[in-house]
Amino acid sequence: MSADNVSTDTLLADLTALAARARAASRRLAAATTARKNGALLAIADALVSQTAAILAANQRDLAAAEGISAAMLDRLRLTPERIKAVADGVANVAGLPDPVGVLLREWTRPNGLRILKHSVPIGVIGIIYESRPNVTADAASLCLKAGNATVLRGGSEAFHSNTAIVAAMDAALAAHGFADAVTFVPTTAREAIPVLCSLEQHIDLIIPRGGHGLISTVVQHARMPVIKHYTGICHVFVHRDADFDMAEKIILNAKCQRPSACNAMETLLVDKAAAGKFLPRIVAALRAKNVEIRTDDETRSLFPDLKSAAAAEWDTEYLDFILNLRVVDGTAGALAHISAHGSQHSDAIVTANAAEAEHFLNAVDSATVYWNASTRFTDGGEFGFGAEIGISTGKLHARGPMGLEELTSYKYQIIGDGQVRA
Amino acid sequence: MSADNVSTDTLLADLTALAARARAASRRLAAATTARKNGALLAIADALVSQTAAILAANQRDLAAAEGISAAMLDRLRLTPERIKAVADGVANVAGLPDPVGVLLREWTRPNGLRILKHSVPIGVIGIIYESRPNVTADAASLCLKAGNATVLRGGSEAFHSNTAIVAAMDAALAAHGFADAVTFVPTTAREAIPVLCSLEQHIDLIIPRGGHGLISTVVQHARMPVIKHYTGICHVFVHRDADFDMAEKIILNAKCQRPSACNAMETLLVDKAAAGKFLPRIVAALRAKNVEIRTDDETRSLFPDLKSAAAAEWDTEYLDFILNLRVVDGTAGALAHISAHGSQHSDAIVTANAAEAEHFLNAVDSATVYWNASTRFTDGGEFGFGAEIGISTGKLHARGPMGLEELTSYKYQIIGDGQVRA
Repeated sequence: MSADNVSTDTLLADLTALAARARAASRRLAAATTARKNGALLAIADALVSQTAAILAANQRDLAAAEGISAAMLDRLRLTPERIKAVADGVANVAGLPDPVGVLLREWTRPNGLRILKHSVPIGVIGIIYESRPNVTADAASLCLKAGNATVLRGGSEAFHSNTAIVAAMDAALAAHGFADAVTFVPTTAREAIPVLCSLEQHIDLIIPRGGHGLISTVVQHARMPVIKHYTGICHVFVHRDADFDMAEKIILNAKCQRPSACNAMETLLVDKAAAGKFLPRIVAALRAKNVEIRTDDETRSLFPDLKSAAAAEWDTEYLDFILNLRVVDGTAGALAHISAHGSQHSDAIVTANAAEAEHFLNAVDSATVYWNASTRFTDGGEFGFGAEIGISTGKLHARGPMGLEELTSYKYQIIGDGQVRA
Repeated sequence: MSADNVSTDTLLADLTALAARARAASRRLAAATTARKNGALLAIADALVSQTAAILAANQRDLAAAEGISAAMLDRLRLTPERIKAVADGVANVAGLPDPVGVLLREWTRPNGLRILKHSVPIGVIGIIYESRPNVTADAASLCLKAGNATVLRGGSEAFHSNTAIVAAMDAALAAHGFADAVTFVPTTAREAIPVLCSLEQHIDLIIPRGGHGLISTVVQHARMPVIKHYTGICHVFVHRDADFDMAEKIILNAKCQRPSACNAMETLLVDKAAAGKFLPRIVAALRAKNVEIRTDDETRSLFPDLKSAAAAEWDTEYLDFILNLRVVDGTAGALAHISAHGSQHSDAIVTANAAEAEHFLNAVDSATVYWNASTRFTDGGEFGFGAEIGISTGKLHARGPMGLEELTSYKYQIIGDGQVRA
């Protein structure tokens, strides 16, 4: 089934059967104790290490087939014993996190004596559709498993053999612990598999796409079940007139340069007009020293004529690189207007010593995470203390911002009476 | 624009403009104080009463055009001064409920000193697509408004003039309070408006469809934004061998007969084989006395040969009428297997004096609301103490079961630092 020319009917039949197996496994997982789930996770960690040779051999096949892709892509695809060990350690770490299922979220009693208990429960079956990095396979599946969910994984075609080997190792460990089919993998690289998966609402409760614009757009267009998107991060830092300029410089260099390829890296720097004269010369020099290419507005270019002009579309661009948009704005109102027009509701920051301005910014910016005097790079499940994350939601429903184990659960109401009927 | 033959291009342009106005209004609403929102809600309540004559005149036009529809449909469509007053009282009641926005949901401090505050915020713009009942118009819009959301309403074509008059009254009150466009209405009965609305993901954050299978299926197929479905209720009551039969009879009659047209009414009664000999004769007699038509399995028909046989598809049917499926099952395991195969994850109940069996049932049934010794009819925002409800979600993401004001919000993280950067 790994060929690209599979018929849609065959795909539909095969993937329906696969998802139905995941559905059956999800029922067993939902009833499993924490100890049994943790035992399975530790067995997966062991299996990944013990199967290192097989996984590396599969990875070699992917690498050999991947000639012509960029060095960065190749590096994302490449596995080493150390990287496999790191993935295994990540899975073992998930075993140590608190179980998000079975938590009593709220309990109350109605005047008629009915006791209502709201408990966290697994979501069911989660489809994860992702691109090149094979480490996502074990990361995502183990988080879903801890939250009592079965997974249907669809990885990128470049990592097909690596992913197949990783899932084989996981599946053997799971079957030995009574959780066969808790982690399933779409055994074809056919592109048509994505719309087919998106139609299986009877067996898949949620799809989480992780990847570029094309992938997410395809999923959103076809999905009949809920989708939690992990989309663009066009993040802003606004330097207000009352900022501590040393602090502002430190935050800006961190938000842009510490890891520019991350979705929570800054793409646009906004500088208060009232601070521009003093602050622009030092920050332009500091960014240049870090080899950051600056694209800017006419006002800034009047001071620094050798800077590039930003094209209109670039204010809406996620560079993920050592490139930065720089714009002078008229106070907090100007910053808010720019962020409202060009932001992606991900992570935005204000740097200021003025508490009233900061509070206004924190309330007015409609983003998952809004910072006062800190780098946007902290938008991350680990940095939030969630222990792990499956991604960063850019939507507003169910999960927003870093998505950890808690966000991989739903809830149900259990109601206890003594014969109550409705009048 | 009320004609049915509007071109899709015109529809797209007009509805995009409408939704963009709702988006702009949602930004004003998100920044509004509780007092201002409540003032607008009370003004809406007053306006509905003062505009009663105009609303009734519009309703007459709908009723006159509605010849040929069933008496039940006509009754759903008909407005009276009393019904308008009841809708207005409902809106005023919403003004008295706690504001779900701006609630500090969680606060913690990281080892690096970052303070993280998780606050409830509005979702933004909510599309409500519903069918015949015109009272939904003010009910749904006022709940969304209280939670800081603007609405794009699309009502059923039979109630078009009634809805237009209701929205006109609301809109005048809203405009006078600085909230123009907070409640918008699709000014056409063209069916093509639904897929067009479903494509406007840039302006509409969530769609809540309320109606039958066809409507919900159309929305799920086309929507590119999240959808919270309010779908079928195939609710079960299981009478376990250890049930108090008097209590069981009272619960069954209430769950079936008190309001059969409600989604939380029972459709299928499951009786433990070990209780069948004693319990079936009395419950069959009691249901017949209430004119409930029973459709059943061969085992029950061997005792009551004059009962109808249930067709296979009827175990999956939501009758919403004085019709009941009745099946004998082998203990709690048999009940769980039936509910897993035929239920709609809405509301299911066990009647038993056996706590261990009850606990097993409460945990194992994967439904929004699971009852022990109470009628399924309590699945309702009012009965839960939510003050009001916009519907009952049959999905598992974001909201499950009765959906009140809290479920009409999202959240955001505000993070306060003193210059933290990521290492």
